[in-house]
Amino acid sequence: MIARERVIRIIKDTFEIYGFLPMETPAFERWEVLTKKCGEEIKNQIYEFEDKAGRKLGLRFDLTVPLARVIASHPTVPKPFKRYCISRVWRYEEPQAGRFREFWQADIDVIGIESLHADVECVSCATEALSRLGINDFSVFVNSRKVLEGVAESVGIESESVKLSVFRAIDKLEKIGENGVRKELEEIGLSAKQINGIFELLRLKSIEEAKEKLKDIEVAAKGVEELEEIYRFARCYGIENRLKFDISLARGLDYYTGPIFEFKLISGKSKLGTISAGGRYDNLIALFGSKPIPATGISLGIERIMEVLRLKNKLPEPKSKVAVFVANATEEMKEKAVEIGQMIRRHSIPCEVNITSRNLRKQLDYVNRRGIPYALIVGERELKEGCVVLRDMATGNEIKIKTDEICSRLKGARETRNKSLE
Amino acid sequence: MIARERVIRIIKDTFEIYGFLPMETPAFERWEVLTKKCGEEIKNQIYEFEDKAGRKLGLRFDLTVPLARVIASHPTVPKPFKRYCISRVWRYEEPQAGRFREFWQADIDVIGIESLHADVECVSCATEALSRLGINDFSVFVNSRKVLEGVAESVGIESESVKLSVFRAIDKLEKIGENGVRKELEEIGLSAKQINGIFELLRLKSIEEAKEKLKDIEVAAKGVEELEEIYRFARCYGIENRLKFDISLARGLDYYTGPIFEFKLISGKSKLGTISAGGRYDNLIALFGSKPIPATGISLGIERIMEVLRLKNKLPEPKSKVAVFVANATEEMKEKAVEIGQMIRRHSIPCEVNITSRNLRKQLDYVNRRGIPYALIVGERELKEGCVVLRDMATGNEIKIKTDEICSRLKGARETRNKSLE
Repeated sequence: MIARERVIRIIKDTFEIYGFLPMETPAFERWEVLTKKCGEEIKNQIYEFEDKAGRKLGLRFDLTVPLARVIASHPTVPKPFKRYCISRVWRYEEPQAGRFREFWQADIDVIGIESLHADVECVSCATEALSRLGINDFSVFVNSRKVLEGVAESVGIESESVKLSVFRAIDKLEKIGENGVRKELEEIGLSAKQINGIFELLRLKSIEEAKEKLKDIEVAAKGVEELEEIYRFARCYGIENRLKFDISLARGLDYYTGPIFEFKLISGKSKLGTISAGGRYDNLIALFGSKPIPATGISLGIERIMEVLRLKNKLPEPKSKVAVFVANATEEMKEKAVEIGQMIRRHSIPCEVNITSRNLRKQLDYVNRRGIPYALIVGERELKEGCVVLRDMATGNEIKIKTDEICSRLKGARETRNKSLE
Repeated sequence: MIARERVIRIIKDTFEIYGFLPMETPAFERWEVLTKKCGEEIKNQIYEFEDKAGRKLGLRFDLTVPLARVIASHPTVPKPFKRYCISRVWRYEEPQAGRFREFWQADIDVIGIESLHADVECVSCATEALSRLGINDFSVFVNSRKVLEGVAESVGIESESVKLSVFRAIDKLEKIGENGVRKELEEIGLSAKQINGIFELLRLKSIEEAKEKLKDIEVAAKGVEELEEIYRFARCYGIENRLKFDISLARGLDYYTGPIFEFKLISGKSKLGTISAGGRYDNLIALFGSKPIPATGISLGIERIMEVLRLKNKLPEPKSKVAVFVANATEEMKEKAVEIGQMIRRHSIPCEVNITSRNLRKQLDYVNRRGIPYALIVGERELKEGCVVLRDMATGNEIKIKTDEICSRLKGARETRNKSLE
């Protein structure tokens, strides 16, 4: 938890540096809210239940849908509404490295802004957070749902729901390979010709090629324009080198409408795949009953990031937060030790006091095992002289100090230690 | 959320000053774990559901039971294990002031220590947290489950389950009054004589009286001894004046075994009742399959505390965390504004950049509405001289500053401002 909290703190600080503000929502939502635009696959992963009044509910599977529900019911919130949320979500999936049934997401969203500046700002902020965590070997793969719509239309698919099924199949390309995706597309009802046509387009390597091949399809031309704008804006944010166009990038969720992003490791550890992702979802909020409000966001996966940091040996060390342990040399000194502990705590120095009946040696064993840097030993003889013993646990050095110097000594020792740890 | 985060931060800091360390557990647990020792009433308030594999689960109703389950399955964790957890729990109750179906608890627990020093340390830590939040008009009502057991035994009740039903009835004394409790006790099957006997004892005012009246009942004598020890220890922690003995204090949960505590407001706002509570639960961990491990803890109710602070006008002000807004005087200056914003962010100064197509006046309206203290205005003319305009939103004063002085100027302004806010 200590390492985890430090990771979350770095992400939170970065979000605030970018001007995002915190907003939380409840763990569960009404079933109709969660399933409005999530797609079949996610729907099957939701933990569903009824409350005592018979209302159908579900644990949230992401932080975006609850946000959209809140915004729809508070349409007058000043825009842009830039919120962040670092919290739990739940999906009934197969657990694997960096993937659990309860997991944490760190989300940023910009609500109410049509300009793709909002999208690039989110990508820039997530990039900065990863970089502050020490993760730099990633690229941001980018595509637009509009380009994919164009791909579908180019082989004659017009139905919205068939398009979404096609996107969900394409999203699995990396996981199940071209043959797997071909089979899924067959099952959706696409002809061999359509499937070949799609794969021909999915092999395009650059925005220029896509622009040329899809120039006659209106929605695709709009998508290409958006991507060009993303690249142009990325230059002012200083992140243009991160971006990699990938026409086969689809994202699994149904609610995306424009640019979509996936942050992937590009070194050997790519098994972990996506560590962050998101995109524009301009139609989602209106589904909950408000006027259309444009929106875009990026989500970081805390467990994946923790796992990447662990593999890189960059996980913050879970050092004890306790600065000093107050030990009693004899049972008679126990209450005196508590009083000294209380004095130290009044100076806001994190302090543990012996509350066991252990002898001094065993108390110091515990201090060592806990990694607490200093012990104060309260003994009868020293106390008569108004003193206690301060023991540096790393060196074993002991010095006698006046009881009224304890706090200033500890503060000095902490500062020196913190400096040497930096 | 900003006010809430500040409240949680103060509580968290206090917990760490007392040497507690963070540990989280999942939001849901197996049904058997949650219901092992919670009592009927709570059992009916649990949100229950099945996962896709047909396992019966429930959202946790407190943070103690999950902790006990974790400790039982990790019996070798070095003791004392002093953990804190500030997180959500769920109960299907009637919502009212400071009481919601999803709410946050801030818990501290000391695991593995039989000595009542552990209990008093928890009470002292919770007292300190409330006091740092500005809440001082509360008493800590204290009783022991063993004294209550003695009360039950004194009227001839021996069955464990009947005793627990009696405790749950007594727990409602404040809510439903003496007549209400009498009726519940009748329903449990107690005779009028037994009920009268119980109420006679519940009217005892002091530990001395209880000691005298219950001296022949072994468990009660042990309970009285514990209470005397609690008072003695409370003196070294400096909290003896907070304690108020209340023989009718019972607590609703079935897992308590020794001293129990309730922190209640003693001024006019006592409608909100208990803002913190807890006690010893020495038998709970063993129920999950480990050897017996003594344990005690205190829980603070975040929503209740927030409501108390709101009524006292002491809720931390939700000031914007954003230090500066970068505005563009004309649309042509937008990308330049983004670049300046990115530079400011690299200096870790929280910054929002205009990403709308609003004109300057509307941008400044937004800055005002958001309560952001400074705006930087990027205009073509100034920029040609290597300058931007820094506007103090409170006074309307504007000064021209060099672009390479922006960060040092903002840092200076922030420090001055933070000082004046302290």
